[in-house]
Amino acid sequence: MAKAINTLRLALLQLKGSSDKTANVRNAIIKIEKVVKDHQPHLITLPECFNCPYGTKYFREYAEQIPDGFTSQQLSKAALENQVFIVGGTIPELGENDRIFNTCTVWAPSGELIAKHRKMHLFDIDVKGGIRFKESETLSPGNEFTTFKIEGRKIGIGICYDIRFEEMARLYRNDGCEMIIYPAAFNMTTGPLHWELLQRARANDNQLFVVTTSPARDLAADYVAYGHSMIVDPWAKIIACADEGEQTVTADIDFAIVDQVRQQIPVFSQRRLDLYGTELK
Amino acid sequence: MAKAINTLRLALLQLKGSSDKTANVRNAIIKIEKVVKDHQPHLITLPECFNCPYGTKYFREYAEQIPDGFTSQQLSKAALENQVFIVGGTIPELGENDRIFNTCTVWAPSGELIAKHRKMHLFDIDVKGGIRFKESETLSPGNEFTTFKIEGRKIGIGICYDIRFEEMARLYRNDGCEMIIYPAAFNMTTGPLHWELLQRARANDNQLFVVTTSPARDLAADYVAYGHSMIVDPWAKIIACADEGEQTVTADIDFAIVDQVRQQIPVFSQRRLDLYGTELK
Repeated sequence: MAKAINTLRLALLQLKGSSDKTANVRNAIIKIEKVVKDHQPHLITLPECFNCPYGTKYFREYAEQIPDGFTSQQLSKAALENQVFIVGGTIPELGENDRIFNTCTVWAPSGELIAKHRKMHLFDIDVKGGIRFKESETLSPGNEFTTFKIEGRKIGIGICYDIRFEEMARLYRNDGCEMIIYPAAFNMTTGPLHWELLQRARANDNQLFVVTTSPARDLAADYVAYGHSMIVDPWAKIIACADEGEQTVTADIDFAIVDQVRQQIPVFSQRRLDLYGTELK
Repeated sequence: MAKAINTLRLALLQLKGSSDKTANVRNAIIKIEKVVKDHQPHLITLPECFNCPYGTKYFREYAEQIPDGFTSQQLSKAALENQVFIVGGTIPELGENDRIFNTCTVWAPSGELIAKHRKMHLFDIDVKGGIRFKESETLSPGNEFTTFKIEGRKIGIGICYDIRFEEMARLYRNDGCEMIIYPAAFNMTTGPLHWELLQRARANDNQLFVVTTSPARDLAADYVAYGHSMIVDPWAKIIACADEGEQTVTADIDFAIVDQVRQQIPVFSQRRLDLYGTELK
């Protein structure tokens, strides 16, 4: 087993998207190169749906195979050339049986695809006077939990709406995760209501870091993302947060905090597993 | 089955305690009579450990049998005379085999004890530079989930530290609860950190009302309670909140909001129960 590192330098790229896929991917690559040059992060995260406008009518047109498609190949190359881990936000994936998924890829500095998460909980909501959206019109849900390790630290992946399901985060915690990364595009209804709350809740209940990466807000888009990409520590404190625009956020993650919280408020071992439990089926 | 009511008038009594049990109970009874006269609530809630100083060295001395003890009898009489439901905070209970529990009693307007909850998760923490407490030095944990109904609306009970365990709230939600009431005494370490967050998290994840009732803050006490008794609605909005001192908070609970949230963001039915679940053992 690799020796666990204590400090991980993280860079969140809150990118502004457009309807031009090539330009979107190029923008991501340029920002990756720049943040590596300026800050030498170990891990870079990208937003949900960073190569495609967010909308059910776009997903099929923009979908690519993973890892053979254009976007995957660009991310693989960027990870290798910049010697950095990349959690590649999400892209619409053209999967088996012609189905489309909302999928996150994770790339190692070797250029290798080390994990792939398909959004498990599709975003189907209808808030009166607010947002209406139905991902399931186009997308299929993933059926797998997804983790990967960076030098001994286990990290779980969820995508946007997945964050509302506290049992998923609990299962990642039970599996030993010390961080959960959610590429996510909340909107102008659910963002002000629940964006910060959900991240702090997951961080606090599971005593781990929570990282979100949103697209930048674009008032001209069909779907207006909330922005505010964020890092929350295991005490539920916000240690970094973007505003609405295109922005890069960097922070040094101190994994020693995970151990401190878990020792001082030992809720994990105090759960009444004689009475209840959250279980995989 | 009784017809479900939509509006429930709730009164939270954030009481200042002392080492004089009789005076503590008398203060509660006087405040119950006053709020009934002034506001005609359907349901009144009291703080954790409202008849006893909060500390492991006090619990045995103050402990009483339920429902035969002095405090139970006074609460029963107050419920009957004022024709009101009372969630009687908690008191140290002298239980079977000489064991002591931290116990919440619930009284109907008939004067009848309709539910009794024993704290399931004992408060054993040791925060560096902050609070250290070990309830398990004196107390035994309860082993039962506890719900009751008011005119068709199911309400779950937890006590203080119980609120940190999201699986307990999930199980109440799965059982049909539309409100969870937590008599609770957070402190000057955990209060600023997590008091509001935990309530909003439970309310949001489970789309129900969360109600806490704390003792008033007493800087001269061994254990300084945080105060800030609170009502959070199923959108995770704080609809009422006390400050630190002895205070009565009233609010009309509109249960229609539960249905609205659950319809508009239908997370309950969107959980991936094919993949995971939270289960009783």
